[in-house]
Amino acid sequence: MPSAAPQPAFVLIRPQMGENIGAAARAMLNFGLDRMRITSPRDGWPNQKAVAMASGAGRVLDYAQLFDSTADAIGDCVYVYATTARPRELTKPVFSPEAAMQDAAQRIAKGQKVAVMFGPERAGMENDDISRANAIVTVPVNPDFPSLNLAQCVLLMGYEWRRATEEVVPQTVSMEGDWAEQIEIEKLADHYETRMQDAGFFYPEAKAANMKINLRNLWSRMPLTRADVQMLHGVLRQMVRWKERGDE
Amino acid sequence: MPSAAPQPAFVLIRPQMGENIGAAARAMLNFGLDRMRITSPRDGWPNQKAVAMASGAGRVLDYAQLFDSTADAIGDCVYVYATTARPRELTKPVFSPEAAMQDAAQRIAKGQKVAVMFGPERAGMENDDISRANAIVTVPVNPDFPSLNLAQCVLLMGYEWRRATEEVVPQTVSMEGDWAEQIEIEKLADHYETRMQDAGFFYPEAKAANMKINLRNLWSRMPLTRADVQMLHGVLRQMVRWKERGDE
Repeated sequence: MPSAAPQPAFVLIRPQMGENIGAAARAMLNFGLDRMRITSPRDGWPNQKAVAMASGAGRVLDYAQLFDSTADAIGDCVYVYATTARPRELTKPVFSPEAAMQDAAQRIAKGQKVAVMFGPERAGMENDDISRANAIVTVPVNPDFPSLNLAQCVLLMGYEWRRATEEVVPQTVSMEGDWAEQIEIEKLADHYETRMQDAGFFYPEAKAANMKINLRNLWSRMPLTRADVQMLHGVLRQMVRWKERGDE
Repeated sequence: MPSAAPQPAFVLIRPQMGENIGAAARAMLNFGLDRMRITSPRDGWPNQKAVAMASGAGRVLDYAQLFDSTADAIGDCVYVYATTARPRELTKPVFSPEAAMQDAAQRIAKGQKVAVMFGPERAGMENDDISRANAIVTVPVNPDFPSLNLAQCVLLMGYEWRRATEEVVPQTVSMEGDWAEQIEIEKLADHYETRMQDAGFFYPEAKAANMKINLRNLWSRMPLTRADVQMLHGVLRQMVRWKERGDE
Protein backbone atom coordinates (compact mmCIF):
# COMPACT_ATOMS: atom_id res chain seq x y z
CA MET A 1 0.00 0.00 0.00
CA PRO A 2 1.31 3.46 -0.87
CA SER A 3 1.38 5.93 2.00
CA ALA A 4 -1.95 7.41 3.02
CA ALA A 5 -0.69 10.99 2.84
CA PRO A 6 -2.23 12.81 -0.15
CA GLN A 7 0.49 13.65 -2.65
CA PRO A 8 1.05 14.26 -6.35
CA ALA A 9 1.57 11.36 -8.73
CA PHE A 10 4.95 11.50 -10.49
CA VAL A 11 4.44 10.29 -14.06
CA LEU A 12 7.45 9.04 -16.06
CA ILE A 13 6.60 9.41 -19.74
CA ARG A 14 8.14 6.63 -21.88
CA PRO A 15 11.28 6.22 -19.73
CA GLN A 16 14.14 4.39 -21.40
CA MET A 17 16.71 2.99 -18.98
CA GLY A 18 15.63 0.88 -16.04
CA GLU A 19 18.43 2.38 -13.94
CA ASN A 20 16.85 5.80 -14.32
CA ILE A 21 13.44 4.53 -13.23
CA GLY A 22 15.06 2.98 -10.16
CA ALA A 23 16.98 6.18 -9.36
CA ALA A 24 13.75 8.16 -9.75
CA ALA A 25 12.05 5.83 -7.26
CA ARG A 26 14.82 6.50 -4.73
CA ALA A 27 14.63 10.23 -5.29
CA MET A 28 10.86 10.15 -4.73
CA LEU A 29 11.09 8.18 -1.51
CA ASN A 30 13.85 10.50 -0.22
CA PHE A 31 11.11 13.09 0.03
CA GLY A 32 8.27 10.80 1.09
CA LEU A 33 6.65 10.30 -2.32
CA ASP A 34 5.54 6.85 -3.46
CA ARG A 35 2.94 7.29 -6.22
CA MET A 36 4.82 6.58 -9.41
CA ARG A 37 3.09 6.18 -12.76
CA ILE A 38 4.83 5.02 -15.91
CA THR A 39 3.74 5.14 -19.53
CA SER A 40 5.18 2.67 -22.04
CA PRO A 41 8.63 1.98 -20.55
CA ARG A 42 10.97 1.19 -23.44
CA ASP A 43 12.36 -2.02 -21.92
CA GLY A 44 9.09 -3.45 -20.62
CA TRP A 45 7.86 -3.93 -17.07
CA PRO A 46 8.80 -5.10 -14.51
CA ASN A 47 12.42 -4.14 -15.11
CA GLN A 48 15.21 -5.82 -13.13
CA LYS A 49 17.65 -2.95 -13.63
CA ALA A 50 15.10 -0.60 -12.12
CA VAL A 51 14.67 -2.92 -9.13
CA ALA A 52 18.44 -3.19 -8.61
CA MET A 53 18.95 0.58 -8.71
CA ALA A 54 15.97 1.30 -6.46
CA SER A 55 17.47 -0.66 -3.56
CA GLY A 56 15.63 0.40 -0.44
CA ALA A 57 12.93 2.14 -2.47
CA GLY A 58 11.65 -1.00 -4.20
CA ARG A 59 8.17 -0.49 -2.85
CA VAL A 60 7.78 2.61 -4.99
CA LEU A 61 8.26 0.35 -8.02
CA ASP A 62 5.97 -2.32 -6.55
CA TYR A 63 3.12 0.19 -6.36
CA ALA A 64 3.94 1.87 -9.69
CA GLN A 65 1.02 2.00 -12.10
CA LEU A 66 1.57 1.27 -15.77
CA PHE A 67 -0.30 3.05 -18.58
CA ASP A 68 -0.31 2.87 -22.37
CA SER A 69 -0.61 6.60 -23.00
CA THR A 70 -0.08 9.97 -21.41
CA ALA A 71 -3.81 10.66 -21.59
CA ASP A 72 -4.56 7.49 -19.60
CA ALA A 73 -1.84 8.14 -17.05
CA ILE A 74 -3.25 11.55 -16.09
CA GLY A 75 -6.91 10.77 -16.79
CA ASP A 76 -8.04 11.05 -13.15
CA CYS A 77 -6.07 14.23 -12.38
CA VAL A 78 -7.53 17.71 -12.14
CA TYR A 79 -4.27 19.57 -12.66
CA VAL A 80 -1.09 18.41 -14.37
CA TYR A 81 2.40 19.96 -14.48
CA ALA A 82 4.89 19.12 -17.23
CA THR A 83 8.60 19.50 -16.38
CA THR A 84 10.55 20.71 -19.39
CA ALA A 85 14.18 21.65 -19.84
CA ARG A 86 13.63 24.15 -22.60
CA PRO A 87 10.86 26.67 -23.19
CA ARG A 88 8.12 25.51 -25.52
CA GLU A 89 6.11 27.42 -28.02
CA LEU A 90 2.90 26.24 -26.34
CA THR A 91 1.06 28.94 -24.44
CA LYS A 92 0.80 27.80 -20.84
CA PRO A 93 1.50 29.07 -17.36
CA VAL A 94 5.17 28.59 -16.41
CA PHE A 95 6.02 27.79 -12.79
CA SER A 96 9.29 27.52 -10.95
CA PRO A 97 9.61 24.17 -9.13
CA GLU A 98 8.91 25.95 -5.84
CA ALA A 99 5.78 27.72 -7.10
CA ALA A 100 4.54 24.55 -8.80
CA MET A 101 4.77 22.44 -5.66
CA GLN A 102 3.21 25.16 -3.52
CA ASP A 103 0.35 25.28 -6.01
CA ALA A 104 0.13 21.48 -5.97
CA ALA A 105 0.05 21.44 -2.16
CA GLN A 106 -2.84 23.91 -2.16
CA ARG A 107 -4.78 21.90 -4.73
CA ILE A 108 -4.18 18.64 -2.91
CA ALA A 109 -5.31 20.22 0.35
CA LYS A 110 -8.61 20.98 -1.44
CA GLY A 111 -8.92 17.34 -2.48
CA GLN A 112 -7.77 17.70 -6.09
CA LYS A 113 -5.68 15.00 -7.73
CA VAL A 114 -2.56 16.36 -9.38
CA ALA A 115 0.29 14.87 -11.38
CA VAL A 116 3.79 15.93 -12.40
CA MET A 117 5.04 14.60 -15.75
CA PHE A 118 8.69 13.89 -16.55
CA GLY A 119 9.84 13.31 -20.12
CA PRO A 120 12.03 10.52 -21.44
CA GLU A 121 15.80 10.79 -21.29
CA ARG A 122 17.46 12.95 -23.97
CA ALA A 123 14.51 13.85 -26.16
CA GLY A 124 12.15 15.03 -23.44
CA MET A 125 8.39 15.08 -23.86
CA GLU A 126 6.66 15.56 -27.18
CA ASN A 127 4.51 18.62 -27.61
CA ASP A 128 1.60 16.17 -27.82
CA ASP A 129 2.30 15.17 -24.19
CA ILE A 130 2.83 18.73 -23.05
CA SER A 131 -0.39 19.93 -24.64
CA ARG A 132 -2.21 17.76 -22.08
CA ALA A 133 -0.63 19.56 -19.13
CA ASN A 134 -2.16 22.59 -17.46
CA ALA A 135 1.18 24.19 -16.70
CA ILE A 136 4.90 23.92 -17.38
CA VAL A 137 7.63 23.72 -14.74
CA THR A 138 11.13 24.86 -15.62
CA VAL A 139 14.14 24.35 -13.36
CA PRO A 140 16.42 27.42 -13.27
CA VAL A 141 19.55 25.70 -14.60
CA ASN A 142 22.73 27.16 -16.03
CA PRO A 143 21.79 27.80 -19.69
CA ASP A 144 25.31 26.78 -20.74
CA PHE A 145 25.01 23.37 -19.06
CA PRO A 146 21.36 22.47 -18.49
CA SER A 147 21.78 18.69 -18.53
CA LEU A 148 19.65 17.50 -15.62
CA ASN A 149 18.89 13.81 -15.84
CA LEU A 150 15.52 12.22 -15.10
CA ALA A 151 16.27 11.26 -11.49
CA GLN A 152 17.77 14.69 -10.75
CA CYS A 153 14.66 16.40 -12.04
CA VAL A 154 12.51 14.06 -9.92
CA LEU A 155 14.76 14.82 -6.94
CA LEU A 156 14.31 18.60 -7.26
CA MET A 157 10.54 18.35 -7.63
CA GLY A 158 10.36 15.97 -4.65
CA TYR A 159 12.49 18.36 -2.61
CA GLU A 160 10.17 21.26 -3.42
CA TRP A 161 7.11 19.13 -2.61
CA ARG A 162 8.55 18.40 0.81
CA ARG A 163 9.49 22.04 1.34
CA ALA A 164 5.93 23.04 0.45
CA THR A 165 4.36 20.60 2.88
CA GLU A 166 6.81 19.88 5.67
CA GLU A 167 6.19 22.02 8.73
CA VAL A 168 9.17 21.02 10.80
CA VAL A 169 11.90 22.05 8.36
CA PRO A 170 14.21 24.67 9.79
CA GLN A 171 13.91 27.54 7.31
CA THR A 172 16.06 29.90 9.28
CA VAL A 173 18.82 29.75 11.78
CA SER A 174 18.06 27.80 14.88
CA MET A 175 20.50 26.56 17.46
CA GLU A 176 19.93 24.28 20.37
CA GLY A 177 22.07 24.28 23.43
CA ASP A 178 22.18 24.81 27.14
CA TRP A 179 22.90 28.49 26.84
CA ALA A 180 24.78 30.40 29.48
CA GLU A 181 22.86 33.14 31.22
CA GLN A 182 24.09 36.70 31.19
CA ILE A 183 25.30 36.48 34.78
CA GLU A 184 27.56 33.60 33.82
CA ILE A 185 29.00 35.57 30.92
CA GLU A 186 29.52 38.49 33.28
CA LYS A 187 31.42 36.34 35.74
CA LEU A 188 33.52 34.89 32.96
CA ALA A 189 34.38 38.37 31.75
CA ASP A 190 35.27 39.41 35.29
CA HIS A 191 37.46 36.35 35.75
CA TYR A 192 39.43 37.10 32.58
CA GLU A 193 39.65 40.81 33.28
CA THR A 194 41.01 40.21 36.78
CA ARG A 195 43.58 37.67 35.71
CA MET A 196 44.66 39.68 32.65
CA GLN A 197 45.05 42.68 34.95
CA ASP A 198 47.31 40.58 37.20
CA ALA A 199 49.24 39.41 34.15
CA GLY A 200 49.89 42.94 32.93
CA PHE A 201 47.86 42.54 29.76
CA PHE A 202 46.19 45.95 29.80
CA TYR A 203 49.11 48.02 28.64
CA PRO A 204 49.78 50.83 27.95
CA GLU A 205 47.67 52.51 30.61
CA ALA A 206 46.09 54.94 28.12
CA LYS A 207 44.57 52.07 26.19
CA ALA A 208 43.61 49.88 29.15
CA ALA A 209 39.98 50.98 29.41
CA ASN A 210 39.34 50.35 25.78
CA MET A 211 41.09 47.00 25.87
CA LYS A 212 38.87 45.93 28.77
CA ILE A 213 35.74 46.88 26.89
CA ASN A 214 36.88 44.96 23.86
CA LEU A 215 37.69 41.88 25.92
CA ARG A 216 34.32 42.01 27.64
CA ASN A 217 32.53 42.52 24.35
CA LEU A 218 34.25 39.46 22.92
CA TRP A 219 32.54 37.19 25.44
CA SER A 220 29.15 38.78 24.93
CA ARG A 221 29.32 38.49 21.19
CA MET A 222 29.82 34.74 21.25
CA PRO A 223 26.96 32.27 21.61
CA LEU A 224 28.30 30.40 24.66
CA THR A 225 26.82 27.37 26.34
CA ARG A 226 27.29 26.70 30.05
CA ALA A 227 29.86 24.06 29.09
CA ASP A 228 31.75 26.58 26.97
CA VAL A 229 31.85 28.96 29.90
CA GLN A 230 33.16 26.27 32.23
CA MET A 231 35.84 25.37 29.71
CA LEU A 232 36.94 28.98 29.34
CA HIS A 233 37.18 29.33 33.12
CA GLY A 234 39.21 26.12 33.14
CA VAL A 235 41.59 27.36 30.48
CA LEU A 236 42.36 30.46 32.50
CA ARG A 237 42.72 28.60 35.79
CA GLN A 238 45.09 26.15 34.18
CA MET A 239 47.27 28.98 32.85
CA VAL A 240 47.43 30.44 36.33
CA ARG A 241 48.32 27.06 37.82
CA TRP A 242 51.03 26.57 35.22
CA LYS A 243 52.52 29.94 36.01
CA GLU A 244 52.36 29.23 39.75
CA ARG A 245 54.14 25.91 39.36
CA GLY A 246 56.98 28.00 37.96
CA ASP A 247 58.46 25.10 35.99
CA GLU A 248 58.72 24.97 32.22
CA MET B 1 39.88 29.77 -15.66
CA PRO B 2 36.88 29.34 -13.35
CA SER B 3 34.04 31.76 -13.98
CA ALA B 4 34.54 35.28 -12.69
CA ALA B 5 31.23 35.35 -10.82
CA PRO B 6 31.80 35.24 -7.05
CA GLN B 7 30.46 32.00 -5.66
CA PRO B 8 30.92 29.55 -2.79
CA ALA B 9 33.60 26.85 -3.00
CA PHE B 10 32.13 23.35 -2.77
CA VAL B 11 34.53 21.20 -0.76
CA LEU B 12 34.39 17.40 -1.07
CA ILE B 13 35.87 15.94 2.10
CA ARG B 14 37.75 12.66 1.45
CA PRO B 15 35.49 11.50 -1.40
CA GLN B 16 35.75 7.82 -2.27
CA MET B 17 34.45 6.95 -5.74
CA GLY B 18 35.63 8.87 -8.78
CA GLU B 19 32.17 8.53 -10.33
CA ASN B 20 30.70 10.51 -7.46
CA ILE B 21 33.26 13.28 -7.87
CA GLY B 22 32.41 13.47 -11.57
CA ALA B 23 28.67 13.50 -10.88
CA ALA B 24 29.21 16.25 -8.30
CA ALA B 25 31.08 18.29 -10.93
CA ARG B 26 28.12 17.96 -13.31
CA ALA B 27 25.64 18.91 -10.59
CA MET B 28 27.72 22.01 -9.76
CA LEU B 29 27.93 23.17 -13.35
CA ASN B 30 24.18 22.63 -13.83
CA PHE B 31 23.78 25.57 -11.51
CA GLY B 32 26.74 27.61 -12.71
CA LEU B 33 29.22 26.61 -9.99
CA ASP B 34 32.81 25.70 -10.86
CA ARG B 35 34.93 26.11 -7.72
CA MET B 36 35.47 22.58 -6.47
CA ARG B 37 37.91 21.74 -3.71
CA ILE B 38 38.82 18.20 -2.71
CA THR B 39 40.60 16.86 0.36
CA SER B 40 42.45 13.53 0.22
CA PRO B 41 40.45 11.67 -2.45
CA ARG B 42 40.66 7.96 -1.64
CA ASP B 43 41.70 6.87 -5.13
CA GLY B 44 44.21 9.65 -5.85
CA TRP B 45 44.07 12.53 -8.27
CA PRO B 46 43.48 13.01 -11.15
CA ASN B 47 40.89 10.26 -11.37
CA GLN B 48 39.83 8.88 -14.76
CA LYS B 49 36.46 7.65 -13.51
CA ALA B 50 35.70 11.16 -12.31
CA VAL B 51 36.64 12.56 -15.71
CA ALA B 52 34.46 10.01 -17.55
CA MET B 53 31.42 10.71 -15.38
CA ALA B 54 31.85 14.48 -15.55
CA SER B 55 31.44 14.51 -19.35
CA GLY B 56 30.67 18.07 -20.34
CA ALA B 57 31.65 19.37 -16.91
CA GLY B 58 35.28 18.33 -17.11
CA ARG B 59 36.49 21.87 -16.63
CA VAL B 60 35.15 21.82 -13.07
CA LEU B 61 37.58 18.96 -12.40
CA ASP B 62 40.37 20.72 -14.31
CA TYR B 63 40.12 23.70 -11.96
CA ALA B 64 39.54 21.62 -8.82
CA GLN B 65 41.97 22.38 -6.00
CA LEU B 66 43.44 19.55 -3.97
CA PHE B 67 44.18 19.79 -0.22
CA ASP B 68 45.60 17.48 2.42
CA SER B 69 43.25 18.45 5.22
CA THR B 70 39.90 20.04 5.92
CA ALA B 71 41.63 22.90 7.72
CA ASP B 72 43.73 23.68 4.63
CA ALA B 73 40.78 23.40 2.25
CA ILE B 74 38.76 26.06 4.09
CA GLY B 75 41.70 28.11 5.35
CA ASP B 76 40.92 31.21 3.28
CA CYS B 77 37.15 31.19 3.97
CA VAL B 78 35.34 33.48 6.38
CA TYR B 79 32.24 31.32 6.75
CA VAL B 80 31.84 27.59 6.22
CA TYR B 81 28.70 25.42 6.04
CA ALA B 82 28.82 21.66 6.68
CA THR B 83 26.10 19.56 5.05
CA THR B 84 25.10 16.68 7.30
CA ALA B 85 22.43 14.01 6.96
CA ARG B 86 21.84 13.55 10.64
CA PRO B 87 21.81 16.01 13.53
CA ARG B 88 25.06 16.29 15.41
CA GLU B 89 25.66 16.86 19.06
CA LEU B 90 27.84 19.86 18.24
CA THR B 91 26.25 23.18 19.09
CA LYS B 92 26.01 25.19 15.87
CA PRO B 93 23.47 27.14 13.89
CA VAL B 94 21.38 24.84 11.68
CA PHE B 95 20.25 26.14 8.29
CA SER B 96 17.90 24.75 5.69
CA PRO B 97 19.58 24.59 2.26
CA GLU B 98 17.55 27.63 1.17
CA ALA B 99 18.48 29.72 4.21
CA ALA B 100 22.13 28.64 3.95
CA MET B 101 22.50 29.71 0.34
CA GLN B 102 20.66 32.98 0.96
CA ASP B 103 23.08 33.62 3.80
CA ALA B 104 26.00 32.65 1.56
CA ALA B 105 24.79 34.99 -1.19
CA GLN B 106 24.64 37.88 1.27
CA ARG B 107 28.12 37.15 2.59
CA ILE B 108 29.57 36.81 -0.88
CA ALA B 109 27.94 40.07 -1.94
CA LYS B 110 29.89 41.67 0.95
CA GLY B 111 33.13 40.18 -0.38
CA GLN B 112 33.42 37.28 2.07
CA LYS B 113 34.76 33.93 0.92
CA VAL B 114 32.51 31.04 1.87
CA ALA B 115 32.63 27.28 1.46
CA VAL B 116 30.17 24.41 1.65
CA MET B 117 31.58 21.07 2.85
CA PHE B 118 30.26 17.67 1.77
CA GLY B 119 31.23 14.51 3.62
CA PRO B 120 32.48 11.23 2.16
CA GLU B 121 30.00 8.62 0.93
CA ARG B 122 28.37 6.46 3.61
CA ALA B 123 30.17 7.60 6.73
CA GLY B 124 29.75 11.35 6.26
CA MET B 125 32.04 13.87 7.88
CA GLU B 126 33.84 13.32 11.15
CA ASN B 127 32.96 15.59 14.04
CA ASP B 128 36.53 16.86 13.70
CA ASP B 129 35.63 18.21 10.24
CA ILE B 130 32.30 19.58 11.37
CA SER B 131 33.82 21.39 14.34
CA ARG B 132 35.62 23.61 11.78
CA ALA B 133 32.35 24.76 10.20
CA ASN B 134 30.43 27.81 11.33
CA ALA B 135 27.05 26.28 10.60
CA ILE B 136 25.32 23.04 9.67
CA VAL B 137 22.98 22.55 6.71
CA THR B 138 20.40 19.77 6.86
CA VAL B 139 18.25 18.74 3.89
CA PRO B 140 14.62 18.05 4.89
CA VAL B 141 14.52 14.41 3.76
CA ASN B 142 12.07 11.64 4.60
CA PRO B 143 13.38 10.34 7.95
CA ASP B 144 12.43 6.81 6.90
CA PHE B 145 14.57 6.99 3.74
CA PRO B 146 17.18 9.74 4.04
CA SER B 147 19.74 8.26 1.64
CA LEU B 148 20.88 11.22 -0.45
CA ASN B 149 24.13 10.53 -2.24
CA LEU B 150 27.01 12.97 -2.60
CA ALA B 151 26.06 14.29 -6.05
CA GLN B 152 22.39 14.68 -5.03
CA CYS B 153 23.39 16.73 -2.00
CA VAL B 154 25.63 18.87 -4.21
CA LEU B 155 22.74 19.24 -6.68
CA LEU B 156 20.33 20.52 -4.04
CA MET B 157 22.83 23.02 -2.64
CA GLY B 158 23.67 24.21 -6.17
CA TYR B 159 19.98 24.58 -6.94
CA GLU B 160 19.46 26.70 -3.81
CA TRP B 161 22.54 28.80 -4.64
CA ARG B 162 21.07 29.57 -8.05
CA ARG B 163 17.64 30.30 -6.55
CA ALA B 164 19.27 32.70 -4.10
CA THR B 165 21.17 34.57 -6.80
CA GLU B 166 19.33 34.21 -10.10
CA GLU B 167 17.07 37.17 -10.80
CA VAL B 168 15.36 35.89 -13.91
CA VAL B 169 13.86 32.72 -12.44
CA PRO B 170 10.08 32.66 -12.71
CA GLN B 171 8.99 32.26 -9.10
CA THR B 172 5.31 32.55 -9.82
CA VAL B 173 2.95 31.98 -12.66
CA SER B 174 3.77 33.83 -15.80
CA MET B 175 2.38 33.21 -19.26
CA GLU B 176 3.39 34.73 -22.51
CA GLY B 177 1.12 34.96 -25.48
CA ASP B 178 -0.61 37.22 -27.91
CA TRP B 179 -3.69 37.59 -25.75
CA ALA B 180 -7.09 38.31 -27.22
CA GLU B 181 -8.66 41.59 -26.22
CA GLN B 182 -12.03 41.70 -24.53
CA ILE B 183 -13.78 42.85 -27.70
CA GLU B 184 -12.55 39.73 -29.48
CA ILE B 185 -13.85 37.52 -26.70
CA GLU B 186 -17.15 39.38 -26.88
CA LYS B 187 -17.44 38.77 -30.63
CA LEU B 188 -16.57 35.12 -30.13
CA ALA B 189 -19.29 34.78 -27.51
CA ASP B 190 -21.77 36.52 -29.81
CA HIS B 191 -20.86 34.23 -32.68
CA TYR B 192 -21.44 31.10 -30.59
CA GLU B 193 -24.60 32.43 -29.01
CA THR B 194 -26.12 33.30 -32.39
CA ARG B 195 -25.28 29.97 -33.99
CA MET B 196 -26.35 27.95 -30.98
CA GLN B 197 -29.60 29.89 -30.98
CA ASP B 198 -30.07 28.91 -34.63
CA ALA B 199 -29.20 25.31 -33.77
CA GLY B 200 -31.83 25.12 -31.02
CA PHE B 201 -29.25 24.66 -28.26
CA PHE B 202 -30.93 26.94 -25.69
CA TYR B 203 -33.71 24.64 -24.63
CA PRO B 204 -35.99 24.55 -22.69
CA GLU B 205 -37.00 28.20 -22.93
CA ALA B 206 -37.08 28.64 -19.13
CA LYS B 207 -33.40 27.81 -18.90
CA ALA B 208 -32.25 29.65 -22.01
CA ALA B 209 -31.14 32.86 -20.30
CA ASN B 210 -29.04 31.01 -17.79
CA MET B 211 -27.52 28.75 -20.45
CA LYS B 212 -26.48 31.83 -22.42
CA ILE B 213 -24.81 33.35 -19.41
CA ASN B 214 -22.94 30.15 -18.71
CA LEU B 215 -21.76 29.85 -22.31
CA ARG B 216 -20.58 33.46 -22.34
CA ASN B 217 -18.83 32.99 -19.00
CA LEU B 218 -16.98 29.98 -20.35
CA TRP B 219 -15.17 32.10 -22.95
CA SER B 220 -14.31 34.81 -20.46
CA ARG B 221 -12.93 32.37 -17.97
CA MET B 222 -10.39 30.94 -20.38
CA PRO B 223 -7.04 32.57 -21.11
CA LEU B 224 -7.41 32.81 -24.89
CA THR B 225 -4.87 34.03 -27.39
CA ARG B 226 -5.90 35.65 -30.67
CA ALA B 227 -5.03 32.39 -32.41
CA ASP B 228 -7.27 30.46 -30.01
CA VAL B 229 -10.14 32.82 -30.80
CA GLN B 230 -9.64 32.42 -34.54
CA MET B 231 -9.60 28.65 -34.15
CA LEU B 232 -12.82 28.66 -32.13
CA HIS B 233 -14.50 30.83 -34.78
CA GLY B 234 -13.23 28.37 -37.39
CA VAL B 235 -14.61 25.37 -35.51
CA LEU B 236 -18.05 26.91 -35.46
CA ARG B 237 -17.98 28.04 -39.07
CA GLN B 238 -16.92 24.59 -40.15
CA MET B 239 -19.79 22.97 -38.28
CA VAL B 240 -22.19 25.36 -40.00
CA ARG B 241 -20.64 24.57 -43.40
CA TRP B 242 -20.92 20.85 -42.75
CA LYS B 243 -24.56 21.20 -41.83
CA GLU B 244 -25.20 23.33 -44.93
CA ARG B 245 -23.57 20.78 -47.22
CA GLY B 246 -26.26 18.43 -45.96
CA ASP B 247 -24.29 15.32 -46.83
CA GLU B 248 -23.11 12.77 -44.29
